[in-house]
Amino acid sequence: MLIRVINPNTTRSMTEKIGASAQRVAAPGTRIIAVNPDSGPVSIESHFDEAISAVGVAEEVRKGERDGTDAYVIACFGDPGLLAARELTRAPVIGIAEAAFHLATMIATRFSVVTTLGRTGIIAEHLLQSYGFAHHCRRVRAAEIPVLDLEDDGACALERIVAECRRAKAEDGIGAIVLGCGGMADLADEIREAVGLPIVEGVTAAVKLAETLVSLRLGTSKHGDLAFPPAKRFTGQFEHLSAQPGS
Amino acid sequence: MLIRVINPNTTRSMTEKIGASAQRVAAPGTRIIAVNPDSGPVSIESHFDEAISAVGVAEEVRKGERDGTDAYVIACFGDPGLLAARELTRAPVIGIAEAAFHLATMIATRFSVVTTLGRTGIIAEHLLQSYGFAHHCRRVRAAEIPVLDLEDDGACALERIVAECRRAKAEDGIGAIVLGCGGMADLADEIREAVGLPIVEGVTAAVKLAETLVSLRLGTSKHGDLAFPPAKRFTGQFEHLSAQPGS
Amino acid sequence: MLIRVINPNTTRSMTEKIGASAQRVAAPGTRIIAVNPDSGPVSIESHFDEAISAVGVAEEVRKGERDGTDAYVIACFGDPGLLAARELTRAPVIGIAEAAFHLATMIATRFSVVTTLGRTGIIAEHLLQSYGFAHHCRRVRAAEIPVLDLEDDGACALERIVAECRRAKAEDGIGAIVLGCGGMADLADEIREAVGLPIVEGVTAAVKLAETLVSLRLGTSKHGDLAFPPAKRFTGQFEHLSAQPGS
Amino acid sequence: MLIRVINPNTTRSMTEKIGASAQRVAAPGTRIIAVNPDSGPVSIESHFDEAISAVGVAEEVRKGERDGTDAYVIACFGDPGLLAARELTRAPVIGIAEAAFHLATMIATRFSVVTTLGRTGIIAEHLLQSYGFAHHCRRVRAAEIPVLDLEDDGACALERIVAECRRAKAEDGIGAIVLGCGGMADLADEIREAVGLPIVEGVTAAVKLAETLVSLRLGTSKHGDLAFPPAKRFTGQFEHLSAQPGS
Amino acid sequence: MLIRVINPNTTRSMTEKIGASAQRVAAPGTRIIAVNPDSGPVSIESHFDEAISAVGVAEEVRKGERDGTDAYVIACFGDPGLLAARELTRAPVIGIAEAAFHLATMIATRFSVVTTLGRTGIIAEHLLQSYGFAHHCRRVRAAEIPVLDLEDDGACALERIVAECRRAKAEDGIGAIVLGCGGMADLADEIREAVGLPIVEGVTAAVKLAETLVSLRLGTSKHGDLAFPPAKRFTGQFEHLSAQPGS
Amino acid sequence: MLIRVINPNTTRSMTEKIGASAQRVAAPGTRIIAVNPDSGPVSIESHFDEAISAVGVAEEVRKGERDGTDAYVIACFGDPGLLAARELTRAPVIGIAEAAFHLATMIATRFSVVTTLGRTGIIAEHLLQSYGFAHHCRRVRAAEIPVLDLEDDGACALERIVAECRRAKAEDGIGAIVLGCGGMADLADEIREAVGLPIVEGVTAAVKLAETLVSLRLGTSKHGDLAFPPAKRFTGQFEHLSAQPGS
Repeated sequence: MLIRVINPNTTRSMTEKIGASAQRVAAPGTRIIAVNPDSGPVSIESHFDEAISAVGVAEEVRKGERDGTDAYVIACFGDPGLLAARELTRAPVIGIAEAAFHLATMIATRFSVVTTLGRTGIIAEHLLQSYGFAHHCRRVRAAEIPVLDLEDDGACALERIVAECRRAKAEDGIGAIVLGCGGMADLADEIREAVGLPIVEGVTAAVKLAETLVSLRLGTSKHGDLAFPPAKRFTGQFEHLSAQPGS
Repeated sequence: MLIRVINPNTTRSMTEKIGASAQRVAAPGTRIIAVNPDSGPVSIESHFDEAISAVGVAEEVRKGERDGTDAYVIACFGDPGLLAARELTRAPVIGIAEAAFHLATMIATRFSVVTTLGRTGIIAEHLLQSYGFAHHCRRVRAAEIPVLDLEDDGACALERIVAECRRAKAEDGIGAIVLGCGGMADLADEIREAVGLPIVEGVTAAVKLAETLVSLRLGTSKHGDLAFPPAKRFTGQFEHLSAQPGS
Repeated sequence: MLIRVINPNTTRSMTEKIGASAQRVAAPGTRIIAVNPDSGPVSIESHFDEAISAVGVAEEVRKGERDGTDAYVIACFGDPGLLAARELTRAPVIGIAEAAFHLATMIATRFSVVTTLGRTGIIAEHLLQSYGFAHHCRRVRAAEIPVLDLEDDGACALERIVAECRRAKAEDGIGAIVLGCGGMADLADEIREAVGLPIVEGVTAAVKLAETLVSLRLGTSKHGDLAFPPAKRFTGQFEHLSAQPGS
Repeated sequence: MLIRVINPNTTRSMTEKIGASAQRVAAPGTRIIAVNPDSGPVSIESHFDEAISAVGVAEEVRKGERDGTDAYVIACFGDPGLLAARELTRAPVIGIAEAAFHLATMIATRFSVVTTLGRTGIIAEHLLQSYGFAHHCRRVRAAEIPVLDLEDDGACALERIVAECRRAKAEDGIGAIVLGCGGMADLADEIREAVGLPIVEGVTAAVKLAETLVSLRLGTSKHGDLAFPPAKRFTGQFEHLSAQPGS
Repeated sequence: MLIRVINPNTTRSMTEKIGASAQRVAAPGTRIIAVNPDSGPVSIESHFDEAISAVGVAEEVRKGERDGTDAYVIACFGDPGLLAARELTRAPVIGIAEAAFHLATMIATRFSVVTTLGRTGIIAEHLLQSYGFAHHCRRVRAAEIPVLDLEDDGACALERIVAECRRAKAEDGIGAIVLGCGGMADLADEIREAVGLPIVEGVTAAVKLAETLVSLRLGTSKHGDLAFPPAKRFTGQFEHLSAQPGS
Repeated sequence: MLIRVINPNTTRSMTEKIGASAQRVAAPGTRIIAVNPDSGPVSIESHFDEAISAVGVAEEVRKGERDGTDAYVIACFGDPGLLAARELTRAPVIGIAEAAFHLATMIATRFSVVTTLGRTGIIAEHLLQSYGFAHHCRRVRAAEIPVLDLEDDGACALERIVAECRRAKAEDGIGAIVLGCGGMADLADEIREAVGLPIVEGVTAAVKLAETLVSLRLGTSKHGDLAFPPAKRFTGQFEHLSAQPGS
């Protein structure tokens, strides 16, 4: 099984870290390709970053279609371009935010989210509402760490995340914590140990859900609004999108 | 990995069918034990049947704890005893209704449920609301088949389910259908072929989600309301429950 | 009018206390029979306790049917087995949690719940959502008292409940408090006096609602999902349930 | 116990009919006074009628306060002036719409409303949402009968209501019907018999709920937003309201 | 264009202040008539005040209809009589609470409300729920100022409002604040400057929305539940309402 | 006042039509610049088209910032890139879907949407839920017209839209209809006349709301999650986005 894990930002070190986390939990027969777009923001910390990154996500799905990809993972906590990506393929596409939310509800009746920056908390709130998990989530918290500080070994990122998770454990009346950034994929075990709560991390969650859907032969429905997009002309720098897969 | 698939009713043939479906999708290293309680209703078609069956579910989890079980599946579409079962173990416990709902939202923006009897539709509605999936589900439909007719080869069960699924496809504006009974586990492929829509079947969905949680080392949270129940005395026919696992 | 007040746990002293509270508010023509199952947990402090206790609730309804019972009250704040019980009878069945929530909304625009243990707060939250009262309730609070401490005269239970109620009054912006445990039935007056807020207690609320429904000749609907359960075989220790009332 | 049943419209024959229905279900010690304002619309079939009628409701509560009233019922299905009335008294105040909705959820998992005119259906919808019962109600239906036709013996009102109720029973998947007009108070029994479903009628429901609250010594909370209104000057035709009860 | 701005209370100085605020933002061709009823409360600080004031609102709309009014604004934060007023005219009618809520969601993802008295916060909460904005609003706060203190130059009203707004900015995670009283119309600029957040004030918001609807030739729909009320007799002091505009 | 109306697709004729509709309703002092990106899809009929078009929307906002733009309108019914666009400017940004929904709730208690293709109905449903208008909308309907057929004079688009609107009027119990495509901007008057209901069209609605916000000096909040995005490097074809306005 070939799973294409798409890091929607263009920071290669983060892509590698995400890929390693994905591979670590993958089943024996699963091959992980971790990629990132050539074009896009080096980190995603705003609605704007997210909007731009969705193009790269779509491009990577289109590339993946040429490689016989069995499933896709979108490895940014805002799930950018999720529905667009689903339209482009018969394979399943899983976002790491949705993946983490789904699994968190299976092991705890209430959870909190600990994300990087306060300003991106609203993205998690919107997803929680749209997916239907708002009442399962007690609180969206931020450790106030810029995303790329997670790439910087010297930074005190882990410490701050653990501190915020401990506050969540003490104050929120929860049973689990969802980590709100793909860049935290390698920290889940340490956080779990330090905090003493189940920690749901989205990249690893999404890989296993992708495997789950593939093994059940459940792909993105091509009946209804996730069918391949109507073929049409794109102009300018997006002209190459005119011929769409599946159409 | 050892997964205990609990059929909450006491019809052995259905347990075997469910077990076979579970085994068919299990990963190479997964061993499925399909069990049903000694005591309980032969089928679950009412709130009453469901309430009684929850005792057997709990008993089977307690037995499973003595066997080193890694995960549990509750194979009845009302997810009877789900939260109680979770309290009794550190292992993950997955209900087939929740499993099917979760996966359906990953491959379609809207789905319908096709269950057995109209009177049990309310159970699905309550779960959809409680889990947060009410707005993803267009309609809960019933093929009006008694559960045990699904065990009877000569019955026209498949035909009626397919007919209802086709109506759902034509009228509901959906991308996928969730089968609303554990006893339909062996029919999913035939229905999919006949209807031309992704069909999400709960037993198989739950087994893969259980594997997912185990492989991510995510067990039921023992912090908060899913912690082991306070030890206490039970009386009468439930006296043997006084000593509880984990407590 | 004969009302069967069912204490779902098996602690006889609590049953008596509940019965006395029920009798104190009953109308002249109402006879209260306070019962508890022979089998089950001595207190209900977990999803597991609740699931087991639902069997006893159903058994007590079945017994009640043989006695010409006019209405039933389920006197545990989780309303265990409520829908199952309703299926078994044409008489009305009222849970004490629902009873208290309903009445609280009639005398205040917002209320808080003060229950025993924090871990059971989630049960109240689930009921509030399912019944539709989530937005009327500001907060579910716990006095952190084990249920059976309410039976122990020397315990400081009352003091702790009053303290928590006072915090609710000071902080929550509410007009009334709902007591979240059947075992608090005898404390309502003292709490009301100490706190200076309307205190809604479920046992007494449920008895009056039961009388209300009976006097209006409104019984549980036998059209639709609360009709008598389909007759079927039960096995093992539940074999005696095979012949069901009304079927 | 003295219950003041306020018909918010000024049609005396309807007030008498409502009063008779109220008296029929009242407990032995309960005295019903059925009143209507001197000033206001002869029937309530619009938001405008409702707004004007709220003044009369408040006036009647103020009159009732001088008479030592124990509880109030507002006998129009829009519950006009309900929160205002509650502010004016320590006694409980019950609207017939809320009363009927509350009781309906206790005897059926889903109900429909059958009201008079389609244009007033929105009032019921708004109340259902505000009270929290929207998901319990399948459909708000109208028999398309002007309210005062219910006062006219020769009219075919009953026939049309029964026909609409039968459609509700056949199509809506419900267990009970709520009658959506105080003027239908005397028809409930005939409708129940003709339709074969529990019929919840608001006037009778509200009287019994009022008795319930009084007997439990639960009055409108005077802590928070239902406290007596701040004393102040009213001008013009409302000058007499300047001195308010309780303030 | 003629806009009738109705202050639902009878304090003339407040009407003038509201009128001046309205005029200040009106388009060149817009003429503002600021009025208040002759009869009613001098301020609106309770459900009761609000109910009475709705009559005056309706009266003022009826007067406005004789003057060729193009749009109406109801300048009290509870939007009293809004739907009734809409029934009485083909012109648009805008409440200042709804106006402020709508605009706040266009400039911020989350806002808080700062109102006068804590006891009226519930009115804002009910409107937020009914209009659909509950999840956009983080918190309803009160500066605990009686409404008429806003008319008193010497009062420290501005200071207290600013202090509460600053708390909202610091604690609520918001992007904007909605002022919760028509009497604050003249303070918005000072508050904005002092707090450093967008301040949405309802009177000015409603005037511009009224102009918007008029210029788009969008009037209150006369199809369905906002059609002119059925003509009927009113009695007593409301007899003059019997002949209704448009009917 | 300068309003930049951004047609997110690249069909120039549609941009001109939208611009003309915008200009027709603009206030005397308002200058409309109607633009479309150079790059992107020629029409927007899928999640994929929408995701790509968001880039062009952001680019057009950035251009607009260099021109002293006072407000922006995003003229596609999915409001693509709305929150991203808001981050890029202190000016208000209005989507045509939100604009139409807001105004529709001010003139009718319930509305339906009539859009182009059934497959894009889900986009409207998601927006209705996210904005809070789900319960105001009875139904999202499609006339099943490809977007570019709206540009084709010979097409029977108008006829099909009118037919669908008439079905909505007859069946949905509504007071107004929202047109679900920017390409219908020039048809609103004809549809209104043919259908006999208020027709809310988004482009014209958004222009007036933009004028409203500007005249009230209410711009996008720069406090919180709509503040300018953190400055950062973009790579590849998006490198020019590295220097962001306001940062």
